[in-house]
Amino acid sequence: MLENPNLKKDLKGLSVDGLRKLSEELRLKIIDSVLRCGGHLASSLGAVDIIVALHFVFDFPHDKLIFDVGHQAYAHKLLTGRVEGFETSLRQFGGIGAFLKRDESEYDTFTTGHAGNSVSLALGMARARDLKGENYDVVSLVGDASIVNGMSFEALNDYGNKRSKHVIVLNDNDMSISRAVGAVSARLTDIRQNSAYKVLKNAVVKASAREGLNYRALRRIKNGVKYMFTKGVLFEEFGYNYVGPIDGHNIEELIKAFNIAKSAEESTVIHVVTKKGKGCAEAEQSPRDFHGYENYSIKPQNSSYSSVFGDKISQLAQKDKDVVVVCPAMIDGTGLTGFARKYRDRIYDVGIAEEHAVSLASGLARGGLKPYVAIYSTFLQRCVDQIIHDVVLQKLPVTICVDRAGIVGRDGETHQGIFDLSLLSCIPNLTILSPASFAQLQKMLDFSLNYDKPLVIRYPRGGIDNKVFDNFEFGCWGRVGGEAENVIVATGASMVKEALKCQDILSKQGVSVEVICADSLFPLDENTLDTLINKRIFVLEDDVAQGGLFSLVCRYYSGCDKMPDVKSCALTTFVEQGDVSQLVDKYELSAEKLAKRILSFTTFAKTIE
Amino acid sequence: MLENPNLKKDLKGLSVDGLRKLSEELRLKIIDSVLRCGGHLASSLGAVDIIVALHFVFDFPHDKLIFDVGHQAYAHKLLTGRVEGFETSLRQFGGIGAFLKRDESEYDTFTTGHAGNSVSLALGMARARDLKGENYDVVSLVGDASIVNGMSFEALNDYGNKRSKHVIVLNDNDMSISRAVGAVSARLTDIRQNSAYKVLKNAVVKASAREGLNYRALRRIKNGVKYMFTKGVLFEEFGYNYVGPIDGHNIEELIKAFNIAKSAEESTVIHVVTKKGKGCAEAEQSPRDFHGYENYSIKPQNSSYSSVFGDKISQLAQKDKDVVVVCPAMIDGTGLTGFARKYRDRIYDVGIAEEHAVSLASGLARGGLKPYVAIYSTFLQRCVDQIIHDVVLQKLPVTICVDRAGIVGRDGETHQGIFDLSLLSCIPNLTILSPASFAQLQKMLDFSLNYDKPLVIRYPRGGIDNKVFDNFEFGCWGRVGGEAENVIVATGASMVKEALKCQDILSKQGVSVEVICADSLFPLDENTLDTLINKRIFVLEDDVAQGGLFSLVCRYYSGCDKMPDVKSCALTTFVEQGDVSQLVDKYELSAEKLAKRILSFTTFAKTIE
Repeated sequence: MLENPNLKKDLKGLSVDGLRKLSEELRLKIIDSVLRCGGHLASSLGAVDIIVALHFVFDFPHDKLIFDVGHQAYAHKLLTGRVEGFETSLRQFGGIGAFLKRDESEYDTFTTGHAGNSVSLALGMARARDLKGENYDVVSLVGDASIVNGMSFEALNDYGNKRSKHVIVLNDNDMSISRAVGAVSARLTDIRQNSAYKVLKNAVVKASAREGLNYRALRRIKNGVKYMFTKGVLFEEFGYNYVGPIDGHNIEELIKAFNIAKSAEESTVIHVVTKKGKGCAEAEQSPRDFHGYENYSIKPQNSSYSSVFGDKISQLAQKDKDVVVVCPAMIDGTGLTGFARKYRDRIYDVGIAEEHAVSLASGLARGGLKPYVAIYSTFLQRCVDQIIHDVVLQKLPVTICVDRAGIVGRDGETHQGIFDLSLLSCIPNLTILSPASFAQLQKMLDFSLNYDKPLVIRYPRGGIDNKVFDNFEFGCWGRVGGEAENVIVATGASMVKEALKCQDILSKQGVSVEVICADSLFPLDENTLDTLINKRIFVLEDDVAQGGLFSLVCRYYSGCDKMPDVKSCALTTFVEQGDVSQLVDKYELSAEKLAKRILSFTTFAKTIE
Repeated sequence: MLENPNLKKDLKGLSVDGLRKLSEELRLKIIDSVLRCGGHLASSLGAVDIIVALHFVFDFPHDKLIFDVGHQAYAHKLLTGRVEGFETSLRQFGGIGAFLKRDESEYDTFTTGHAGNSVSLALGMARARDLKGENYDVVSLVGDASIVNGMSFEALNDYGNKRSKHVIVLNDNDMSISRAVGAVSARLTDIRQNSAYKVLKNAVVKASAREGLNYRALRRIKNGVKYMFTKGVLFEEFGYNYVGPIDGHNIEELIKAFNIAKSAEESTVIHVVTKKGKGCAEAEQSPRDFHGYENYSIKPQNSSYSSVFGDKISQLAQKDKDVVVVCPAMIDGTGLTGFARKYRDRIYDVGIAEEHAVSLASGLARGGLKPYVAIYSTFLQRCVDQIIHDVVLQKLPVTICVDRAGIVGRDGETHQGIFDLSLLSCIPNLTILSPASFAQLQKMLDFSLNYDKPLVIRYPRGGIDNKVFDNFEFGCWGRVGGEAENVIVATGASMVKEALKCQDILSKQGVSVEVICADSLFPLDENTLDTLINKRIFVLEDDVAQGGLFSLVCRYYSGCDKMPDVKSCALTTFVEQGDVSQLVDKYELSAEKLAKRILSFTTFAKTIE
């Protein structure tokens, strides 16, 4: 069926059985593609039936479908003309995107990747439609992890101010599907379809939702607000209709529910319960292992900066009982699985709540603890104000460990870690370190334990370990290559690696270059910078040029008698998806490209002579 | 009483009548001080009785009091050793701070100014206390506007994960106090004080709170979530005890409620209803006019950048029906009062929800409208990720109008607009403009109407109108002063004013300086920059050096053959409170200081000759 060029249209004529078969075909295709290309398997499989039913009921792209995060959108991509090349190019350089992308398809209403924004976007579109007197439906598909982000709450709260109709499909895969839930919900759905729905609503739906008819399934949810969501109380108080819980793998029920929402005059929240990894036994059993899955051809790494961080922070915790960790929903990704097992009482996984995570850490520090916040660079963009206002301005000893800083790879534009340095380096007196080797990260973390000020340590995804820079002395940069006319000042493990390789390439051509590892970004190593004032300095960093190390270096020299010739080798655009090495080359940061650039200056200088 | 040096201790021995008298004395002192120094009058008067009762019941600073925003804290300051000089130095350069300040008193648990973080901070301190086995109470005082910020929600939601006991006092001044509420609540308080409280709670309190006993007063609140708060449903679902509503001006009732919360084992939310401006007839009648009050000695300005923006955006709205405005709770401050009256359906005041504000605007733009987001620079720090992810990456024509950019004045460290340029200039391809005159702002807004990409326009608080730069040509800087060895490239109305004055000072000393008005920050005027390559360039900006205009200029020159001598005149620390002119001078950005600096270079150059 997926090969049918008219699938988008023909889908509307399919029976429920036909749709079920389509779902099966989609699942096989997704499994196949992820095994080849890597990707988000468990959540994508869980959302297949919802997506099929949405495409059956609504008329996209006339109607608008807005994904939250969008790591579950593969079925949507396959249903909207992206079958060809899907299983070979997904998440690859130049291929099908990991998330939704406006450039890729008119069916992708927004480019996505970060959580919690879909209700805001949907409400905006719905209000625009009403103001312009247009006529289409706006549907957002949001997971149970995203709906508890503060931003979602702000949007739900604002809905009351101007109630433009939209539909929220809440995909809840944190909840078990029991037979009971399915049965109750089927009955409720039937009731709602009935023309007497409006009349019955108060008497039946509210009573059942509130009085605990679903209690057996629902009590498994520990979390207070989740419980509220599942009861529908919260949504109803915000002014939404609430339908659910619905079995998210029963296409017939889904279609009924979506039709109710479509024909309703008011906004509806449809609470759908799905199973992560649905249709793939391994993924169903271990959805966490199959959340983000990398393909077999990539050799699993023994160590990474994340694992080094995780091991070291456990050591520090053993040494100092004040060490605690705060993490906004990325325990596994940041290497903290072991810590979480060993020090259950000293780790706070706050969910997708980056703002709260940082300020909670400030409170912990003010209470005399030594908190570490573990967060990806791209999600740190969410808590800049909290770092300025609640950490640095308070002078509290919070250490922020920024994982996946620099070019990250296959997750594309929304997941690269290219802004954190610029966003943080402008904050006065915030110490910022960046290791180029595992040993340096370990030594920086040792250093952090007795450092009583705000501190940032940023390190890349993966395991590039430039063993040549194993020492760490605060504010003192390592140098390799002795006196030379050209100097590369590089920061970040990946860039230091390229710098060393470039040194090698040029040395074979008789051109000597010094490599300096800028492991301390604030403070800079001013003594070293003073020795470079008559050289040509290439500042190499895999983050945006504006506000990065280049800017820091220029600012220092601005206070000196003379400004040396400083060249920026950095990013100036958003960075697409691909392998890190492909991207480093594409954006002119590879050893080869850098060597060429340095040579052009050297040659030019010789010509003048 | 306020003159009593042992007040903090003696207060504990006062009768309720004595406390009432103390409250009255505090109110008179506050009114007197604000009339002299300016300040937040209405909210400070409203919170006096709460603060007196808190200091009576709790033992600060052993117990910890955390303010949210903190613009209502004057009574707290006066009760904690800051009577002397209060009425002459409040909000003045070197004087008593506008908000809470850790440096000012051990009673100020955190430096404050931004909204919504107090529950996170309190939860952090409470968890630290429990982990360290210490023994003190943590109390946060939060307003009804702050509690609906997404961050508060994230914190309340996280409370369920580890329930360390703390107390939240919800100061609700958006709700009328009717006699009925007072009576009911007095009865409830009595019930709660009774030893049978636990037993009665389910039967009485819940029933009355939920079944609408207070309904007459509560239905005035339009907003869904507020209604939930007032019913206590939301807090109870999050796992908190709920007490209220309490009359926030009945000290006896407040003391009872705080004692209940203090002795309870679980965390309690005490919902207190207060009247803004309490005790000052004018402020009670027009609390909006007395929210932020400036003293009489300052001549009211006829026009400001805010009012020019407000007038112009109304004109644009008349011209183009797609123009809409989003504003996170600063309609009056950003000059939009008139617009809001005239175009009620085209303005979205989303409350203190900066993240949602920006993404809502993205949705509006995607739906074909032309949205403008009006926001203060300091609060823009809250929505950096939304600007990166939901505006710029989507290439949507959202215009962000950044009010109070640069040095702002008397509200101090937490309210200066010194980071927005650094936070925004690192985002690829984001157009950033900054007018130096009212005419330029008007022309930039005209320009924005047909500009179909993300756009930022940043302008200062106040009314500095450098009429010499009245033209605006996109990407083309204005120049004054002809060829000269030294060039000042200035951005922002305030800095352009200083640059022109500096030019004047130096010209009297026979030194000619050119002044360039960098009204376009991205793109830069590269043609003009090319003409400066052999000059000494002073980049003048009242924001942080790192990532500001200085960095942008250096980055441009990094791609040229030669890096000219670029000197940064900018901020490198947080900026304290004071009049703008005092601060501009203190941080070395005044015409006089700049002239001195330029002269030192000129003299030095002559010495060498």
